[in-house]
Amino acid sequence: MNFAAQFLYSRVLKNRSPRERFREDEDYDPFWQSYAEQPFSKKDDNKIKKQDVPGLCDLHRCKDGLMRNGLIAQKPPSINPERLKDFGEEDYLNGDVKTWEMKIVSRNEELLTDTLSHIPQSSSTTILSSCNKLIRFEDISAAAFKIQCGVQKTPCMYSRLSKQYGMDIYLKKEYLQYTGSVKERGVLYLLTTLPQDQQRKGVIVASDSNFSMAVAYHASELRIPVFVIMSTSTSPVRVKMCREYGAMVISYGTTAKDSQIHARRLAQENGYLYLEEEDSAVYLSGLGTVGLEVYEQVPKLDAVIFPAGGHCGLLAGSAATLKYLNPHISVIGVESESFPVLQHSLKAGHPAEDQACNNHHFYGDVSGVCFGSNSLQLTGKLVDKVVAVREEDILISMLRLLEYERATVDAEGAIGLAALVAGKLPELKGKRVAVVICSGNLELHLLQQCIARALTLDNTVCRFSLVISDCPGDMSKLLEILAREEARVLDIKQERTFVTSELFTVEVICTVETRDKIHTAQLRNALLERYPTTTWTQR
Amino acid sequence: MNFAAQFLYSRVLKNRSPRERFREDEDYDPFWQSYAEQPFSKKDDNKIKKQDVPGLCDLHRCKDGLMRNGLIAQKPPSINPERLKDFGEEDYLNGDVKTWEMKIVSRNEELLTDTLSHIPQSSSTTILSSCNKLIRFEDISAAAFKIQCGVQKTPCMYSRLSKQYGMDIYLKKEYLQYTGSVKERGVLYLLTTLPQDQQRKGVIVASDSNFSMAVAYHASELRIPVFVIMSTSTSPVRVKMCREYGAMVISYGTTAKDSQIHARRLAQENGYLYLEEEDSAVYLSGLGTVGLEVYEQVPKLDAVIFPAGGHCGLLAGSAATLKYLNPHISVIGVESESFPVLQHSLKAGHPAEDQACNNHHFYGDVSGVCFGSNSLQLTGKLVDKVVAVREEDILISMLRLLEYERATVDAEGAIGLAALVAGKLPELKGKRVAVVICSGNLELHLLQQCIARALTLDNTVCRFSLVISDCPGDMSKLLEILAREEARVLDIKQERTFVTSELFTVEVICTVETRDKIHTAQLRNALLERYPTTTWTQR
Repeated sequence: MNFAAQFLYSRVLKNRSPRERFREDEDYDPFWQSYAEQPFSKKDDNKIKKQDVPGLCDLHRCKDGLMRNGLIAQKPPSINPERLKDFGEEDYLNGDVKTWEMKIVSRNEELLTDTLSHIPQSSSTTILSSCNKLIRFEDISAAAFKIQCGVQKTPCMYSRLSKQYGMDIYLKKEYLQYTGSVKERGVLYLLTTLPQDQQRKGVIVASDSNFSMAVAYHASELRIPVFVIMSTSTSPVRVKMCREYGAMVISYGTTAKDSQIHARRLAQENGYLYLEEEDSAVYLSGLGTVGLEVYEQVPKLDAVIFPAGGHCGLLAGSAATLKYLNPHISVIGVESESFPVLQHSLKAGHPAEDQACNNHHFYGDVSGVCFGSNSLQLTGKLVDKVVAVREEDILISMLRLLEYERATVDAEGAIGLAALVAGKLPELKGKRVAVVICSGNLELHLLQQCIARALTLDNTVCRFSLVISDCPGDMSKLLEILAREEARVLDIKQERTFVTSELFTVEVICTVETRDKIHTAQLRNALLERYPTTTWTQR
Repeated sequence: MNFAAQFLYSRVLKNRSPRERFREDEDYDPFWQSYAEQPFSKKDDNKIKKQDVPGLCDLHRCKDGLMRNGLIAQKPPSINPERLKDFGEEDYLNGDVKTWEMKIVSRNEELLTDTLSHIPQSSSTTILSSCNKLIRFEDISAAAFKIQCGVQKTPCMYSRLSKQYGMDIYLKKEYLQYTGSVKERGVLYLLTTLPQDQQRKGVIVASDSNFSMAVAYHASELRIPVFVIMSTSTSPVRVKMCREYGAMVISYGTTAKDSQIHARRLAQENGYLYLEEEDSAVYLSGLGTVGLEVYEQVPKLDAVIFPAGGHCGLLAGSAATLKYLNPHISVIGVESESFPVLQHSLKAGHPAEDQACNNHHFYGDVSGVCFGSNSLQLTGKLVDKVVAVREEDILISMLRLLEYERATVDAEGAIGLAALVAGKLPELKGKRVAVVICSGNLELHLLQQCIARALTLDNTVCRFSLVISDCPGDMSKLLEILAREEARVLDIKQERTFVTSELFTVEVICTVETRDKIHTAQLRNALLERYPTTTWTQR
């Protein structure tokens, strides 16, 4: 371990969270996760059995309640052990003692295995090359077991929005995770599968994305040294947040590209593992656990809507889970109309070129648009529909989540609901639909802007100009009408220069808040009656 | 059933939620709750046994999974049946078959029973006078059992705010309930204990409070006809919300008092039960289940902080639970400095006079300040400390919850955390503290105002005025400084009239956004260096 890593390591130990502290009380080995990392696969049977024993002990510790008690405010395991029996091939969990052996190869399982068996290993991947490239239901259920102590089992609640959109909407509130995004699932699983010496050396990431936040938090919870390289243009709020999660934040370069290059160099020099969001089987399995939970939490589902951003990991992994469990559940991906990379890639049959997104600050992780072939192939085979939505729809969706669900979410979190807001999925009317609200890291000034824009789009803030005579009392009459119509005046000003109307008149520009579209129409009629020249500013 | 009730009843049947629909599939009797309503008490042993049997069947249906399957996206029961054994006196649950009998009368139980045994029945109460006036742990655990299918078991999560305030903070997110407030617990329990004929006749409420919302939703879920009388000044958003929950909303009167009188008259004429928030044992037991869940979700708690608003029901009920379970847990109530009614009442020894709160729109339910003697006596006996906070602290607390927890909560929801923000509880440093965030029904325009105010209070939005020469280029120099200091300009304007400075100068008033206090100080120094006459606008 080099000096920097050692420094961080000691720092992390000092600032550890209550969850860690408890683990220590229990004589907890910080690196136990590494033992249980091997994929359960028939092929390398013997190798696994040797390595598997310590991992099993830990799994048992988890089961018998010892560990569970320590995990404050955590939810029960996401899968029932009894249900697991039906899926077969879990005999390794029992060590050498085979209690039952059952192999169900359904159409779906074959489909899953098929999909990826002939995919060549991506050369650009930075994840350990020993990772199993097959993604199977067993991988996802194993991920669910391993991460259950580290991530929240978020609620999937019936929403009041159901009536408005004519279907039963259930919102899977992944934004309630500690770092506010679903990425935690993939990241935690990824980190626990790292070999022990890599966990000692540490990991490094380079961006201010939700992925980095998840790495920062979970690595430091697992006492893996973690470094985050951020460009100088990064929002200070994000820097502070990342530090609070326990990472060592280094400011370098003016662009994201600069800091990535620096991070890779540091990784090479010091033996850290450079992590970025991609589509390894391990990462997808972790993200796929969302599908598992939704399936468990909402019975008789007709469709599940996912954002198609961030390398499609969430979409691909969860589609694999859901289609395995019930092929009749529609899986729908939603992306932005501004950069419909997934649709392009699916048409082309290979990952489309990076398209620079000009509004990274708003779209965040959705704008990171380079796919791997794993997630693309899975998506192509398993996802029923991919739709694209406009920025306006996303803003309205954010507003609805704020009004109805008391949640501030970012563009990626709102994009799934945006497909319903935009009416892009009329076939779901009357159906039971789950929407994954995957992240909620919206900065405050962005929130304020979004509310302002969304209110305008929603026709509850409107602006008009009219001409009144420039004598005492005429302004008062206008305001009286506004008061009678119950419109809340946000801004009113008189324009005296650049007015082309006759002398002794003045132009008044007024911004008011109304209740809804109907109220706006009422107000408009009332104003037109008195001031026929009223001009309404259209958006 | 009169005509209006009949009309509503049929309407409710049509618009029923998926939860209800499933119940119907299961041949569900909408009024089964009324059977199981009697308090489990030794005194009227025989009477209960007769009535108890149908209720028991339903409880069993609940246990064996049939009902549970239908309750989509609901959490597991809030108490483990195994744990319950330790509390004694639950033999009625088994019908006539006594499997065990155990009676533990600890100091705490006596204390609870003691507290209320000699309280005369309040004459103003509108709840059935047959309600058991003793509040015991058994009542609260029974409430927890009965309401578990109708309310969310909200998460109680470790918060990132912990570091900032030097203690382990866990937030009990009760604002995630369907109607956005903790009142649902009390209301649902209250409604299930109504006699069958009253459930057929219906209930009526008169306000736009969270309590009314909870009644509107749960009554219509239980297919009890429900009427809400709202004054014409009620926000249209609230009216719409209430309609969406399934209530029949009637607009009447210009003030809350008017609509209350009207509601009482309607109740008398048509046989509806008029409900308002008060402190009957049933309602307190329902609210007390929060204490139970917090105790279960966070081990080794040192203190729990509750808002002391809304008749103190939440505070009193939960204090009863927590002090019974562990008398070493501090229970702290927080109220507003503007109307410290609880502190006054506790000093006086009887409920203080109503104090009109002049900012009802902001404080909402907290401003309803008439206590009953039940909750006051319980509070006086069991609550360790009552602190008062300023409006500023509540606003900052709302801002912190928005920044750190992605939650928009109202004043009542934020008031608990406000006590920590204000530093009123220094004795909790280093301790493990749970804070109940009890409601989140904040209207959008109020949210915008609150964010704006809170940002000013937090010193991240600041305003200054300075005098520059009125020649081309001088404004550009000022903006250059602001750009270099990375301050975001929100508003800039030149004041030409009413300026007392020398000729050919102009006053510039500028509002900017900074990162934090340190950044503000930096900016101030940079400006003072160049423009020594800069005046900072203080709040």
